[in-house]
Amino acid sequence: MERKTATIQDVARMAGVSTATVSRTLSKPSVVAEATRDAVLKAVQESGYRVNSTASNLRRQRTGSVIALVPNLANTFFSQILAGLSSVLTQAQYGLLLADTQAGPDPDARLAHYLTSGQADGLILFDGTLSCAPLGMPGRPPVMMACEWMGSDLPSVRVENAGGAGLAVDHLVDLGHRSIGHVLGPRGNVLTEARFDGFRAAMSRHGLRLRDDWLFAGDYSMDSGAAAARRWLQMPDRPTALFLSSDEMAVGFLGVVQHAGVSVPGDISLIGFDNIAVVEHLTPALTTIRQPRTLIGERAAELLLDMIDHGRLTGPSEVIPVELIRRKSAAPPR
Amino acid sequence: MERKTATIQDVARMAGVSTATVSRTLSKPSVVAEATRDAVLKAVQESGYRVNSTASNLRRQRTGSVIALVPNLANTFFSQILAGLSSVLTQAQYGLLLADTQAGPDPDARLAHYLTSGQADGLILFDGTLSCAPLGMPGRPPVMMACEWMGSDLPSVRVENAGGAGLAVDHLVDLGHRSIGHVLGPRGNVLTEARFDGFRAAMSRHGLRLRDDWLFAGDYSMDSGAAAARRWLQMPDRPTALFLSSDEMAVGFLGVVQHAGVSVPGDISLIGFDNIAVVEHLTPALTTIRQPRTLIGERAAELLLDMIDHGRLTGPSEVIPVELIRRKSAAPPR
Repeated sequence: MERKTATIQDVARMAGVSTATVSRTLSKPSVVAEATRDAVLKAVQESGYRVNSTASNLRRQRTGSVIALVPNLANTFFSQILAGLSSVLTQAQYGLLLADTQAGPDPDARLAHYLTSGQADGLILFDGTLSCAPLGMPGRPPVMMACEWMGSDLPSVRVENAGGAGLAVDHLVDLGHRSIGHVLGPRGNVLTEARFDGFRAAMSRHGLRLRDDWLFAGDYSMDSGAAAARRWLQMPDRPTALFLSSDEMAVGFLGVVQHAGVSVPGDISLIGFDNIAVVEHLTPALTTIRQPRTLIGERAAELLLDMIDHGRLTGPSEVIPVELIRRKSAAPPR
Repeated sequence: MERKTATIQDVARMAGVSTATVSRTLSKPSVVAEATRDAVLKAVQESGYRVNSTASNLRRQRTGSVIALVPNLANTFFSQILAGLSSVLTQAQYGLLLADTQAGPDPDARLAHYLTSGQADGLILFDGTLSCAPLGMPGRPPVMMACEWMGSDLPSVRVENAGGAGLAVDHLVDLGHRSIGHVLGPRGNVLTEARFDGFRAAMSRHGLRLRDDWLFAGDYSMDSGAAAARRWLQMPDRPTALFLSSDEMAVGFLGVVQHAGVSVPGDISLIGFDNIAVVEHLTPALTTIRQPRTLIGERAAELLLDMIDHGRLTGPSEVIPVELIRRKSAAPPR
């Protein structure tokens, strides 16, 4: 295929508009009248003009992209957050470059690579398990932590994880429960630990005993919730209510106990965390702690763009409130 | 923050390795011995060296990126496909740039923009509602359609949509159903039409009548499945089985009818499409048509990379088989 070397001037002449209008049409088509846009796109097509944004970004010393490093693209939890990121970045005319930190053999080296490769004007990190060491590199772009965070002083957007766990326990206690257990996420994960801290603090505040055998290991997956349910079914002395550190674990737990003929909330009350889309359609609909995920993405993007615009490596952090969504899976104990 | 202007030669000298090793360490850290990698990263950090991949890609006339245009990043259906894309692209050292075609006011202009902006070496289109017109532009990069496709001769990776609908109807007929309805996706959508075609063909093959009042409008969302269930509940003469064009609609349908005291599969058998993660944990677990979504992403990436490597705008298409997953939501009619 032959590549012609039409210039923006050629396109402007053919379309009968200024070069500024051609440029605006290609970068922000929505602000240009339809007839103008059609004329410009027709001229682009006929002339074979091709914008070289790589070259134009290079002149401005920016790449026009932001990279989000996500621990697992297959985790649907990130979808809505990415939509929030994308909407803010798109409006600011930034592309969103996504990379899966756990896809290769060495996540830490991958972070180092993206920090030094010059591919993006800023990074958003969703993976709190990476080592902080590469962040000491000189000349690196601004970095914003989202959702999970390391023991670092990086700016971050996060939700009230401990506070959300407290809301769950308060609600169960209000309903009359005294025997309350907890299904944890993977140990060492910052979300797991923050929610577990909140659970412990609330239990203590209500004068309730924390029983080790009522703490169930999990990894946030539905399968790990199902495994916790199989352990719960075999216990001689069961808690009457559980706070689960993720909705996905609650979905897995519910499936197994219902299959075994156990009534929820009759025999056990369940409260999840996240408010993923499916849980309001379950029978019973799941009581949970809502994380405003689109907002997390939007705020992470806004705070990062602010650092990029001002050429700063530091900036404010933000803690986003969560809320209890009362549905049918938690009720007074029988 | 001061920016030094160290060169790759400075880094190589400080680390005591060749410039080729520095380059390899930064682009493919996993293939370098750990001690070498540590030495190079330390030298990068101390020297302040920053790889300018924008400049180096420009010299090679490639951007090192592939753009995936997705109709809605918040749709969790795409998560696993994106993970498949990402794993293949990462191994080939391409970045994955994601954009949401429906995030702005003019999706067609957005496609035209990405085709002319020179930001990527190839595009993967997930949005079959866009106009084909911009694809006539000269000098555009290779484009691969994934999942949805337009009435074009672009290479595509898609699944056996009509065939999957046929598997669902065959299974319901095998169970003894004769009164079978269908919940459709949005009309005009290629997936909707392909699955509806497959449904009609299978009904006709079995000599069963297609009743207009047993066709339910939907848009693939859980809420639209719930709305279909409310209509089904009010019908005097109901079908005993339904094939739903997506699992999400089946989740919404199940929630509403169970809430109304209807037994699934006792009063109505349900078969979905997709095999999203949650449906095996429902009570009853959902019978569905499995789409191998990671594989869709992997094959789309592989076929696109092949076009990029060979500088071709055309290439083979691929149709990926689907399979019936028998669970508990479909049983013989009472």
